[in-house]
Amino acid sequence: MTTTSVRRQLAPVPFAQVTLDDPFWAPRQETNRTVTLPHMHQMLMETGRIPAFDLNFTRPVPSPIVQIFGDSDAAKWLEAACYALTAQADPSLAALVNEFANKVVAAQQPDGYLNTHFIVTQPEMRWKNLRDWHEMYCAGHLIEAAIAHHQATGDPKLLAALCRYADHFAAHFGREPGKRRGYDGHPEIELALVRLYHATGEQRYLQLAQYMVEERGQSPNYFDQEARERGEDPAQFWAKTYEYCQAHAPIRQQGKVVGHAVRAMYLLAGVADLAHELDDPTLLATCERLWDNLVHRRVYLTGGIGPSRRNEGFTSDYDLPDESAYAETCAAIALILWNHRLLQFAGDGKYADIIEQTLYNGFISGVSLEGRHFFYDNPLASAGDHHRVPWFACPCCPPNLGRLLASLGDYFYSTSVDGVWIHLYAQSSAKVQVQGQDVDVRQVTNYPWDGAIQLELRSAQPQAFTLHLRIPGWCDEWQVRVNGAPLAEEPALTKGYLAIHHTWEPGDQVELTLAMPVQSVWAHPAVRQMQGRLALQRGPIVYCMEGIDHGGVGLDRISLDPAAVERFTVEHRPDLLGGVTVLHGAGALIQEAGWEDALYRRNRPPTTQPVDVTAIPYCVWDNRAPGEMRVWFRTG
Amino acid sequence: MTTTSVRRQLAPVPFAQVTLDDPFWAPRQETNRTVTLPHMHQMLMETGRIPAFDLNFTRPVPSPIVQIFGDSDAAKWLEAACYALTAQADPSLAALVNEFANKVVAAQQPDGYLNTHFIVTQPEMRWKNLRDWHEMYCAGHLIEAAIAHHQATGDPKLLAALCRYADHFAAHFGREPGKRRGYDGHPEIELALVRLYHATGEQRYLQLAQYMVEERGQSPNYFDQEARERGEDPAQFWAKTYEYCQAHAPIRQQGKVVGHAVRAMYLLAGVADLAHELDDPTLLATCERLWDNLVHRRVYLTGGIGPSRRNEGFTSDYDLPDESAYAETCAAIALILWNHRLLQFAGDGKYADIIEQTLYNGFISGVSLEGRHFFYDNPLASAGDHHRVPWFACPCCPPNLGRLLASLGDYFYSTSVDGVWIHLYAQSSAKVQVQGQDVDVRQVTNYPWDGAIQLELRSAQPQAFTLHLRIPGWCDEWQVRVNGAPLAEEPALTKGYLAIHHTWEPGDQVELTLAMPVQSVWAHPAVRQMQGRLALQRGPIVYCMEGIDHGGVGLDRISLDPAAVERFTVEHRPDLLGGVTVLHGAGALIQEAGWEDALYRRNRPPTTQPVDVTAIPYCVWDNRAPGEMRVWFRTG
Repeated sequence: MTTTSVRRQLAPVPFAQVTLDDPFWAPRQETNRTVTLPHMHQMLMETGRIPAFDLNFTRPVPSPIVQIFGDSDAAKWLEAACYALTAQADPSLAALVNEFANKVVAAQQPDGYLNTHFIVTQPEMRWKNLRDWHEMYCAGHLIEAAIAHHQATGDPKLLAALCRYADHFAAHFGREPGKRRGYDGHPEIELALVRLYHATGEQRYLQLAQYMVEERGQSPNYFDQEARERGEDPAQFWAKTYEYCQAHAPIRQQGKVVGHAVRAMYLLAGVADLAHELDDPTLLATCERLWDNLVHRRVYLTGGIGPSRRNEGFTSDYDLPDESAYAETCAAIALILWNHRLLQFAGDGKYADIIEQTLYNGFISGVSLEGRHFFYDNPLASAGDHHRVPWFACPCCPPNLGRLLASLGDYFYSTSVDGVWIHLYAQSSAKVQVQGQDVDVRQVTNYPWDGAIQLELRSAQPQAFTLHLRIPGWCDEWQVRVNGAPLAEEPALTKGYLAIHHTWEPGDQVELTLAMPVQSVWAHPAVRQMQGRLALQRGPIVYCMEGIDHGGVGLDRISLDPAAVERFTVEHRPDLLGGVTVLHGAGALIQEAGWEDALYRRNRPPTTQPVDVTAIPYCVWDNRAPGEMRVWFRTG
Repeated sequence: MTTTSVRRQLAPVPFAQVTLDDPFWAPRQETNRTVTLPHMHQMLMETGRIPAFDLNFTRPVPSPIVQIFGDSDAAKWLEAACYALTAQADPSLAALVNEFANKVVAAQQPDGYLNTHFIVTQPEMRWKNLRDWHEMYCAGHLIEAAIAHHQATGDPKLLAALCRYADHFAAHFGREPGKRRGYDGHPEIELALVRLYHATGEQRYLQLAQYMVEERGQSPNYFDQEARERGEDPAQFWAKTYEYCQAHAPIRQQGKVVGHAVRAMYLLAGVADLAHELDDPTLLATCERLWDNLVHRRVYLTGGIGPSRRNEGFTSDYDLPDESAYAETCAAIALILWNHRLLQFAGDGKYADIIEQTLYNGFISGVSLEGRHFFYDNPLASAGDHHRVPWFACPCCPPNLGRLLASLGDYFYSTSVDGVWIHLYAQSSAKVQVQGQDVDVRQVTNYPWDGAIQLELRSAQPQAFTLHLRIPGWCDEWQVRVNGAPLAEEPALTKGYLAIHHTWEPGDQVELTLAMPVQSVWAHPAVRQMQGRLALQRGPIVYCMEGIDHGGVGLDRISLDPAAVERFTVEHRPDLLGGVTVLHGAGALIQEAGWEDALYRRNRPPTTQPVDVTAIPYCVWDNRAPGEMRVWFRTG
């Protein structure tokens, strides 16, 4: 490593080494494995997405454009199921996995091609519309599934099939003479190829990933050429701009995150991977520049991104409407994927802050507590007409959510040359290796409902290393003790982490206490839609109010005085919504009395009266009676 | 007249008897005659709408669906031009009128049919789709134009042609055996036929109007039958509901104003006419019921109606978003037409309040001060992307605006058995007849910029009658003097009018003073979008702020304290926007300082600092540099 290397200094502890037994995530993972994964399998069967691999369907199901990326939905389910199997044996799930993996392998064509839509319905159109038709996107998800399958089962056949498929399109696309300079309109293959490189050790997949990233957005634009070859006028592109498919400019020239949010994040996850693999500071700087734009201008408080339904993506800086927020579940997931990659470079807690904020809010809001209903879009306010549904015509989000939940352990711990990093808090056990020694890490905590965290680091013999403890961005006051005593020297907080240098002996205990008051959160004045409004947060949890707790008064009629928020009380309700901590306090409710039939009145503001309000975690809204929901409240 | 008669007790003084020479309307009328009418003629020529009557166009111009109602746009121009000629000779305008009227007459088919689209392009489709194709709507506007033409020129030929056309479709549609029970999807013919009845004295036109209103919405629905005859499934109606075309239920069964706003108002104007002509209390009660719903639940502060672009119409009670408000100019016009008709029944000032509020705000906002640019939709807030344009693909609004401006004098005065009614204030002269005697009414005032109004009623000899003076709904304090002295007896305020009984002698002067403070206006708590917000009004004028007066700070960052509004000052600016009174005061401006790059921050509300604000009349916004505009301001 040279002094100017930008390669990652941290390595994530893989989820197979991490067991969550906390009150928040462990039940979600259990539901995911026992309810959501079987439910999704059934949906994928009923809607023909898994049967598609039998290659005997005769017509588009249910519509051509949706079917075109159907393979990816089934692939993400397979990836999720394999992660679940890696964590825990489950014979019935294993049987479904095995059956589907066999189908996929059997569907592969002699030349290595493997996309059910184009095999069955439009064989002549293979690779003819990379801009819109998602072939490499589907390939990327199949590759990720194959890697997970290999890891879960030890069976190499699916992975081998996907290698053949990757080799197949590597023969068609690239900068070498005779190849076409294509790349997919929906990024995903880039990060998948880097994973394939690691899974196989084959350098050519890394090179192919690099080509995909480097070529994208170059001039002349491949999508123009391809459109003309189809007899189309490129100017008639339905999405109007190549920003939509991240092909408006080469990545290093991009200054703002634009276009389709999931596409942007998947591409940037691949770019982050390449920055590490190629030790390329320009790619890392690109990630940092776009991250700054995203996090300082374009992210919802919940970690949702992409406010607009029109392009499923970004609009302009500070445009963050609440009720019309698109904030696709997949985009929240992709944001987490990207930030997880960035976090490992230098252990900067700002990336972990985004991961935590997104996980606890705009990600997990995507699935109901019972595990069979999903949000595609995650608005921050609803008049009562937004509800989770069992499935979507375009079901990208449910299996994406399933695979992240099943591999959630990936995000909690890292190791580095000098020790252990704890990024996220949740009661859990992890087996890590520090300087060649096994260390058992145990977290005991009721996080996110309580900020008291007890840590034990147990190794066979005393070992000196640094424990890096993240102090979340939301936390203004903390205390750390080792074996019951304050540290001799106040540990420095560097990039969001306390570094505790210690020679760890069996039985050593660290107590970290993160103060967790109810906080009022304010948006930058340039966020037009949030001016004069506040939101409620406690710890990593963003709160909302639901109509059901407020007698149908109209949540928009409630305003919150910031001073009153300081007096809000906290109650843990084990009986409510799977066990959540709720907030109680006083708001002001606009009165209708005295208005009679008037629609407008002059010089007499509406009167208000105090009203008891109850806020619940945003992520569990719409799990009771359907109704109104609101995150941001007027202050006057 | 029986004791239970509901017929109109007032008769409007026609605009030909009224001359406005005020600072607000007279310049608008002059611009209308000298700039807007010629401009519109040019546009109607260039877009083929007037040349269409030569019947030699070969293809739809510019698109079939827009062309289908093209005759109505040209007809409204003709009506407007004829009104302008009635008020004032204008040889060049008269030449254009004459030429076009001849074209229309020449275009009429031997059987009386007169719709250019169906004569030229689809003769086989005449009367085949009353739901969508606007044939009677176009006929209605041609009838109104013909009446105006006859009045302006004395030439009966166009009126005769339109009588033949009305007779032509009366032969096809009606309840008599052999006729089809059709009526137009876009009301207009109803009120036009009542006008035709008055213009000709022919009772059959009144009966036809009655049939059109009575049959509409009956079961089985004519539009269902008609669709099936075209081989279409009625359930596939593109607008989803017959509310759109006011055919979901018979009018007497309707409880809320729904559907397309212009269609609803045109129909109700016809219904009000029939209530009078037929002396039908059920039709008047229907108007009153729907008026209550509209005015208490569904009208913007500007008089705009129909919040939704989707159906160009109504949504649900209290749904009045500002920035996305559709509030079509034509709908404001139609609202005025309907209320003008209702006002004449019993002289209830609540109807005049709506007329005044709409005229000064959401109606006249539809045209620029220079007369060549128009709004189709009139939102109450804009981020800076809403601007008047010279013409529209569907140019219904500009000529509609032109005809109302040219006939504006219609709305100011009425007479009744007992005297004279003054509904609106503006410097003007009117020749009225009271109990058979000519009375010259003269108003001297700087209204709407000032509430001092001097009135003189001059007749050949002393005459005892009642002067009914409207006290506007916005006015809380007024004073009236006759010949410099308070009245011996405080006059009663009945339904918004002061009744002054007096024997008027030449030289008698009435001084009415309407207090005109700056008012803060509040919306009913059920208007979600306006909670915690106020608007500014003074007299009938609704104010707004524009970006250009506030250095581009972002108007959404300004909040107004109601107490500060009471201290707002008033300045008349003869140099500004044609001469307007502006409001000055202090608001609070959210500060960006201290935010740096943070998108959210905790426990520290944004700071504000005082900012000087200037509000201008809403109706003249977007007449300077393009930019932001806002009517409703946060109060906290």
